[in-house]
Amino acid sequence: MAAHAAPLERIIAELTRLPGVGRKTAQRLAFHLLKVPESEARALAQAVVDLRDKIRFCDECHNLADGPRCPVCADPRRERGIVCVVAEASDLAAFERTGAYRGVYHVLGGTLSPLRDVGPDDLRVRELVERVGAGGVLEVILALPPDVEGEATAVYLGRILKPLGPSVTRLAQGLPAGADLEFTDDLTLRRALEGRRDW
Amino acid sequence: MAAHAAPLERIIAELTRLPGVGRKTAQRLAFHLLKVPESEARALAQAVVDLRDKIRFCDECHNLADGPRCPVCADPRRERGIVCVVAEASDLAAFERTGAYRGVYHVLGGTLSPLRDVGPDDLRVRELVERVGAGGVLEVILALPPDVEGEATAVYLGRILKPLGPSVTRLAQGLPAGADLEFTDDLTLRRALEGRRDW
Repeated sequence: MAAHAAPLERIIAELTRLPGVGRKTAQRLAFHLLKVPESEARALAQAVVDLRDKIRFCDECHNLADGPRCPVCADPRRERGIVCVVAEASDLAAFERTGAYRGVYHVLGGTLSPLRDVGPDDLRVRELVERVGAGGVLEVILALPPDVEGEATAVYLGRILKPLGPSVTRLAQGLPAGADLEFTDDLTLRRALEGRRDW
Repeated sequence: MAAHAAPLERIIAELTRLPGVGRKTAQRLAFHLLKVPESEARALAQAVVDLRDKIRFCDECHNLADGPRCPVCADPRRERGIVCVVAEASDLAAFERTGAYRGVYHVLGGTLSPLRDVGPDDLRVRELVERVGAGGVLEVILALPPDVEGEATAVYLGRILKPLGPSVTRLAQGLPAGADLEFTDDLTLRRALEGRRDW
């Protein structure tokens, strides 16, 4: 049933490879790209090419950058004494969206996973140890995913970072904002209880 | 809070212009495009460029094509005596997905709308009249959207096409598949009643 002209079939096929994009959505997007001004379609294509051509990793924190340092590390107002360790650059982006964090980051590039055969040498652990060992870091916040691999990675990093001097902290675990207690899973509830604080 | 490197901000901005893509989705897609093999990202960019460079209109039905005729008109097995008139090429695509239609199409390019200042000369009405007038068309199916403008366009087209000889039909209106009677809107219910058929 390929009633579409070949270039249309091709863009639909390429769009369908994107996460969360099914054939119907891809088709809607393709027709949209046919309707917008030509410059807008070309700008999208060029942005995809530039993304791959110009993005590199920050020399300091391994965040995505378009020069030697990422926008966070290049900002002189950020507190260099606080390092927030995240698994992925997309996690870093989530923290930046909050606008609540003024320190810097260290992007590990994943979490330890014996199952997926990911060990410390596959992550930027050595770089983190060197950074903390160089001095000036007062606190390392382990902002790893609240799952088994994230926990294991946090335990491992805590063990090797604490002897280097900084205080090592973890993100609070508990109820998400607006949660309905009745429908909250057991593990989250248990952690909210364990982490209870004075009122 | 532009914590992203410039090429990343740019692709997110471009993706956000797509229908149904908010900033969060755009960011997820951008990170996806950073992770996939470089060839896959480039293929997407090239497909967007090709879409605009290579798509033209079919000489016969004004469907999207990459040559003088679209895949439907180029197919010798389609019945040329039945012409389904649709507002947009995306509507044509919906019919093709069903696999239930063996005739050909005529893409109007919209519907008549005094409010949006769209008259017959802004649509491919003249081309439709010429096509039907040339003979060989036994039936014209008016498959226009079931809204005020679609109705008005159907009335207008029926009036000028019937004198040319073909039978002119409309799509059935009524309950959509799987509809819940209790939650069906009044107009749909009324049309389902008006269009009732012998059992």
